Amino acid sequence: MEVTRKLARFIVEHRYDDIPENVRHEAARAFLNWVGCAVGGSRHETVERALAALAEFSGPAQATVLGRGDRLDIMQAALMNGITSHTFDFDDTHLKTVIHPSGPVASAILAFAESQPVKGEDFLHALILGVEVECRIGNAVYPAHYDVGWHITGTAGVFGAAAAAGRLLGLNEQQMVWALGIAATQSSGLRELFGTMCKPLHIGNAAKNGLLAALLAKENFTSSNQGIEAKRGFGHVLSTEFKPAEITERLGETWEIALNTYKPFACGIVNHPAIDGCIQLRNEHKLEAEDIESISLKVHPLVLELTGKKTPQAGLEGKFSVYHSAAVAIVHGAAGEAQYSDACVRDPKVIALRDRVSASVDRQMREDQVRVAIRMKDGRTLDKFVERAIGSVDRPMSDADLEAKFRSLTDGILSKAETGNLIRLCWDIGRLEDAAEVARASVPTAEAAAGKSWVTTEDTEHTEKS
Amino acid sequence: MEVTRKLARFIVEHRYDDIPENVRHEAARAFLNWVGCAVGGSRHETVERALAALAEFSGPAQATVLGRGDRLDIMQAALMNGITSHTFDFDDTHLKTVIHPSGPVASAILAFAESQPVKGEDFLHALILGVEVECRIGNAVYPAHYDVGWHITGTAGVFGAAAAAGRLLGLNEQQMVWALGIAATQSSGLRELFGTMCKPLHIGNAAKNGLLAALLAKENFTSSNQGIEAKRGFGHVLSTEFKPAEITERLGETWEIALNTYKPFACGIVNHPAIDGCIQLRNEHKLEAEDIESISLKVHPLVLELTGKKTPQAGLEGKFSVYHSAAVAIVHGAAGEAQYSDACVRDPKVIALRDRVSASVDRQMREDQVRVAIRMKDGRTLDKFVERAIGSVDRPMSDADLEAKFRSLTDGILSKAETGNLIRLCWDIGRLEDAAEVARASVPTAEAAAGKSWVTTEDTEHTEKS
Repeated sequence: MEVTRKLARFIVEHRYDDIPENVRHEAARAFLNWVGCAVGGSRHETVERALAALAEFSGPAQATVLGRGDRLDIMQAALMNGITSHTFDFDDTHLKTVIHPSGPVASAILAFAESQPVKGEDFLHALILGVEVECRIGNAVYPAHYDVGWHITGTAGVFGAAAAAGRLLGLNEQQMVWALGIAATQSSGLRELFGTMCKPLHIGNAAKNGLLAALLAKENFTSSNQGIEAKRGFGHVLSTEFKPAEITERLGETWEIALNTYKPFACGIVNHPAIDGCIQLRNEHKLEAEDIESISLKVHPLVLELTGKKTPQAGLEGKFSVYHSAAVAIVHGAAGEAQYSDACVRDPKVIALRDRVSASVDRQMREDQVRVAIRMKDGRTLDKFVERAIGSVDRPMSDADLEAKFRSLTDGILSKAETGNLIRLCWDIGRLEDAAEVARASVPTAEAAAGKSWVTTEDTEHTEKS
Repeated sequence: MEVTRKLARFIVEHRYDDIPENVRHEAARAFLNWVGCAVGGSRHETVERALAALAEFSGPAQATVLGRGDRLDIMQAALMNGITSHTFDFDDTHLKTVIHPSGPVASAILAFAESQPVKGEDFLHALILGVEVECRIGNAVYPAHYDVGWHITGTAGVFGAAAAAGRLLGLNEQQMVWALGIAATQSSGLRELFGTMCKPLHIGNAAKNGLLAALLAKENFTSSNQGIEAKRGFGHVLSTEFKPAEITERLGETWEIALNTYKPFACGIVNHPAIDGCIQLRNEHKLEAEDIESISLKVHPLVLELTGKKTPQAGLEGKFSVYHSAAVAIVHGAAGEAQYSDACVRDPKVIALRDRVSASVDRQMREDQVRVAIRMKDGRTLDKFVERAIGSVDRPMSDADLEAKFRSLTDGILSKAETGNLIRLCWDIGRLEDAAEVARASVPTAEAAAGKSWVTTEDTEHTEKS
C-alpha cells in the first residue's frame, strides 16, 4: 500500500469546508492553549540559553518569539516557539499516543505565517491537517515505538510540521511525498532526555525540521516515495510494530484533534484528581486554610509512587508532592506554574496546610479518581469523590477553564488588556484576515516598541538591539 | 560504565602532541580529499535546490560554501558543505563501518573557523578527535545499526561534529557530556533515502546539528549524562546490538582515521579493480582505443550483479556499467565525475570501445581483484591481474593520486593556479595560522570578487547580490 502517497494526496487535496464545526472549535481550543503555554514559558532559563546560543546566527527578523520582543528568521522562530511552548509540559495531549500535538505544528506554521500572508482559515486548516498527520503516524507505531525509547512528540511531530507547512506552501502531491520523506529521515528525539532542557528542544526541532522539509520539497529536493512505509523507512526502522492502516483508513472521516485534552494543572497527571477535588470543595464551601484541621486523600497507588514527596524544598519538587498540590489547591484555588515556584513551595501558609495533608492508597480508585475528606476545626467533615478528574477526555476543560489557564500563564508577562486581546484573537483564529496577528499580539507592548531584534549590522556580525 | 563521560573527558583533555605524525598526515589526506569533493560537488543541482530553499533564511554572511561565492551563517554553511562534499559519494570511507568520516566533522569546524580564528593545529586536532568519536560510536553499533536501516554517516556523524566543534569552543567536561547528549537526541538519517538528494543532506544535517549541540552546550543547555549508553540512549534505541567497550577502550592509543580509505574512481567500489587494471595497461602500453580489438574481464560475481548495465543511456547509469567504466579507463585514463557525465556516456568513441568489452564471472576472484585481457588489432594480447585494487586499505592511493583526484574534481571550477594553491593549503592545514584560509581559497577569484552573498537588506527581506 502506498501509505506516504495516500497521505500526501489527502494533505494536498483536502478542503476546509469538509471539516466539521466541532473539530474547528477544538482546533481553536488547542491553539489558544498552545499560545498560552508559549507566552508563559517564554522567560524560562531554557529559552534564555537557547537564544544566547543561537540568535546570533539568525537570518532576517521575520518572526516572533511568542511573548518576547525577539524577532528571528522563521526557522529559528519555529525552533524557539517549540521550546517555549513545551517548557512547562503544559501543552495539549493526544492521550492515545501521549503526543503533544500542537507544539510542532503550530510553531512551524505561525512562524511561516509571519513571512507571508496566511488567512486564518488556511492556518486553522493546516493546523488540523498537521495534527491529523502526526497523530495518525503516532497511532501506527504506538506503543511499540514509545517503548523502544523514542520521544514520540519529536519523532512524529516532524511529519505534522512538514505537512502543515507544506500545505501552506502549496506543495503539489509529489512535493508533499518528498516533504514527508525528508521529515522521516530527520525524525529524532530520545526519552532518555526527559527531565532535561532537551525535552522541549525536541518539539522545537520537530517544528524547525518539518519546516525545513517543506521548504526543500518546494524546490523539488528529492526524497523517497515511501519514506513512511518502506522496509527501511520510518515505520520499520523506528518501531518494532507498524500498523499502516492507522494512517490511511477513514482519512478525512475522523479527526484526531477531536481527541485532544488539556492539562488543567502544571504537574504530572496523577496529581490532578486530588487537586480537582480540593478546588471543588474550596469553591463550594469558600474554605480558608486556617479553618482546616486536616485533609485526607484516598488515592490510586501510582500517586504515592510518583508524587509522594512529603516536604518538597524547590518548586520543581512540588510537582512531585501530592501534599503540596492539595495544599495550594485550597490556599490558591489553582495549581499553575505560580503554585510550583520556589517561593510558593516555601510559603509558610502553604507549608502549614501541607503538613496537615495525609494520603493513603485505595486500590479501588482509578487513576483519574480520588476521595477527599476534609475535617474542619469547627468539627464539620466535608467529602468529595471525584469520579473523573477535570481535563480527562470524559470531563474536558471548558472554554472558560482554558481562558483561566491562559490568564494564569500570561500573568506577569502581558497586561490584563493584552491578555484579553490575545485570547480573543486565538478564539477568532479561523476568521482572521492575517493569522500572524496572533504572533504580534503576544508581545508586551513595551517590548514590541523597543524592538529587541537580532539583526545584521555588518556582513559578519550580529548585534542585539535592545 | 560511564561511556559518555569517559568519551567527553578524552575529547576535552587530549593533547595534540600525543598524536603520531602518520595520523596527522592521514588527517591532512582526508581533509584534502574532502575539500576536493566539496568544491567538485558545489555546482550540483542538489546544492542549487538546497540553496534556493534555505539561503534566504541565512544569518550573517560568515562562512563560505566551498567552491562558490555564496556566504552564509556558520550553521547553514556547515549544512551546505556537508551536502556538497557527499553529493558525488566520493569522500573518504572508514571501511569497518562504511562511515564517510570527514564530511560531518570538517563541514562543522571549517564553517566555525570562519567565525572566529582557529589555528591550523587546533583545527587538525579537532578533525582527528571528531573522526575518532564518530567512528568509535559507529564501531559500537555496526553492523546491527546499519542493518536496522540507519545511514550511519548521519547517525554517528552528528557526534563527531559535536565533539570537534565542542573542542574548538572550549567546552568543559560537563558541557561536552551535554553536547554528546544533544547530539544523541538529534541522531537521524534513514538508508531508505539512498539514491535521493537526502543522502548528502544527512551529512549536512549531521554537521549542522552537531554544531548546534556544541553551541547549546556552551550555554549550559542541559541534556543527559548518559546520552550514548543509557537504556533509552543512542546505543540501545538505534541499534539491536551495542558494544560500549568499542568506544572507551584504548582511547588515545589507536586512531580510527588511520584506517581511512579514499575512492580513486567516482563509482561503486566493485568497479574499481577493472578500472584500475585498464588504466595500468593503458599507461604501461600507451594504448589507444582504436588499436584495441576487444577487452575481456574476469570479475567477482557482485560486479555483474551490481554493475552489469550493457548500454547505459545517462551519466548516472554509467556508474552501474563495468563496460562503460572499462572503456573510459582506456579512453580517458580516468574514471572521475567527468567520465560519468551524460556527454561521456553518449560519446561515440567511448561507446565504440564499450561495445567491445565483455565480462564473465570468475568465482576465484576476490571483490578487490580482476583479470583484464586485452586483444590488440595487431594480434598482441595484453594481460593484467590486479591483486588488490587501488584505494583499498592494503594499496592506498598515494599523495600524488589524491592530488590528481583533487584536480579532476576542481577542474572547470577553479583555475590551475587556484587549484594548486588550494592543494598546498590543504597539505599545510596543520601548520596554518588561520584554518579558514582554506575556505577562502576554495572560491574562484572572480566569484569571490563579485561577492555573491545572501545578506539582509532590510529587516524582513533577503536579497541575492550577484
